[in-house]
Amino acid sequence: MQTVAIFGVGLIGGSFGLALKKAGFKGTIVGVSSEATVRVALERGAIDEAAPMADAARGADLIYLAQPIGRILDTLHHLDSYVNSGTLITDAGSTKSAIVATARQHIGRCAFLGGHPMAGKEKRGVAAADAELFRDRTYVLTPDDPAELERQPAKDFLGWVRRMGAHPVVLAPEEHDRIVSFTSHLPQLASTALAATVAEQAGDRLSVAGPGLADTTRLALSSFELWRDILATNNVAIEQALNAYIRKLEHVRDHLRTREIQSEFEIAAALAATLRK
Amino acid sequence: MQTVAIFGVGLIGGSFGLALKKAGFKGTIVGVSSEATVRVALERGAIDEAAPMADAARGADLIYLAQPIGRILDTLHHLDSYVNSGTLITDAGSTKSAIVATARQHIGRCAFLGGHPMAGKEKRGVAAADAELFRDRTYVLTPDDPAELERQPAKDFLGWVRRMGAHPVVLAPEEHDRIVSFTSHLPQLASTALAATVAEQAGDRLSVAGPGLADTTRLALSSFELWRDILATNNVAIEQALNAYIRKLEHVRDHLRTREIQSEFEIAAALAATLRK
Repeated sequence: MQTVAIFGVGLIGGSFGLALKKAGFKGTIVGVSSEATVRVALERGAIDEAAPMADAARGADLIYLAQPIGRILDTLHHLDSYVNSGTLITDAGSTKSAIVATARQHIGRCAFLGGHPMAGKEKRGVAAADAELFRDRTYVLTPDDPAELERQPAKDFLGWVRRMGAHPVVLAPEEHDRIVSFTSHLPQLASTALAATVAEQAGDRLSVAGPGLADTTRLALSSFELWRDILATNNVAIEQALNAYIRKLEHVRDHLRTREIQSEFEIAAALAATLRK
Repeated sequence: MQTVAIFGVGLIGGSFGLALKKAGFKGTIVGVSSEATVRVALERGAIDEAAPMADAARGADLIYLAQPIGRILDTLHHLDSYVNSGTLITDAGSTKSAIVATARQHIGRCAFLGGHPMAGKEKRGVAAADAELFRDRTYVLTPDDPAELERQPAKDFLGWVRRMGAHPVVLAPEEHDRIVSFTSHLPQLASTALAATVAEQAGDRLSVAGPGLADTTRLALSSFELWRDILATNNVAIEQALNAYIRKLEHVRDHLRTREIQSEFEIAAALAATLRK
């Protein structure tokens, strides 16, 4: 692996470049991004040079798609004709089924490996990129066929992921999307719906709030731009997650004065404690 | 106001004692609590001496009830016979309708003023007490009759609340309970129900979670002991708050791929930003 092309040099793409270098990568990192982003990415050393998409794709051993999901889908429609047969294409999109299905249709099957680093920050953009972003975080890989992981380019890529300090976890794309609908997409929508409900019902009385409201509505600050593609490409799993949550809230509502509610508090506290280990 | 009796010298009661002294109170603070709590409260200087309930009540100009709600209700059933006619009784319970109604029935009406400092900490107990706990926080007062605030003992008490740096807000007990059902009780139950749902559906895959899950489930760490009395004494308002939240979640679920969801994100983000001002 000599040349890596990063498409979309934002927080994740920029961090991938910085982390690769910190892990000892001596090859060339080419960035494909807007002019303004490229300038900052070069300054920060997240990329070594910039190129248009077609040129970057032609010369790369690894193509790392770190764009928004909609742009990744778009790129996959056009990439195949530029790519060498030995190149691995991987991505960092937050949903996997739609991306893997699009790659299956438009890219030679063995040249694509879906991925999702479970890492992030409140701040976006390459200015916030961090060589340590992936350390001690799960890095999900969603091969369409497990044999993809046995090809040398995939093994090389996995080696670098491990050297960055991340922990690879292999999941089927649909299983990934079902899990994150509960562990990531549901918390976002629960927080957004909570903030919207409070705005309608008590928005003029926010001085009368406990400190817990700020915690539970921090995610509600997220931009819709980031979430539109996630909601569109995982809507079936998200609907099911919302239904499970609504059923749980109805159960809580119907048992406010019984022992049932104590058991929900205990299950919930155990999960919250496990998350903090 | 020469002598203050604090019933229940935990985080709130202990902080009230420390804050009184810091604000310049030169009288005597008597604590009514368990032996172990009294020992720590004396060490920390939150109280000057300890006494049994009846003795403390007899000598006090101000009685500050900072026990759990159930204990406050119990105390109000027994306190009237010990209290001097000039004494003000106030409380710091998290729900107000049940407490104000009990006081109306068992205490001479003008001798009681309901209160709720909107302040707290993750840690409980007098060891975590803090003279600055009330600074820049709202302190809700819920007189059964607005004339209560015009009596001298209430004016004296309010003066000390202001000198502690808190901002008094006057609300009817039912209005207080309706507002906190949205701003405090709903966030707790939303967090508990979220954590319980994730535990059931993805509890074995917590390594595949974004950082937002930890934020939204921090409240789920709360102990049920603290919440049992709140749920029992505000269940009607909490049911309505849960219903409004469930309706909002259903609306979100039914509009995942439409512009409607963008407007919910915007309303929610505006509320979350206001909370952080």
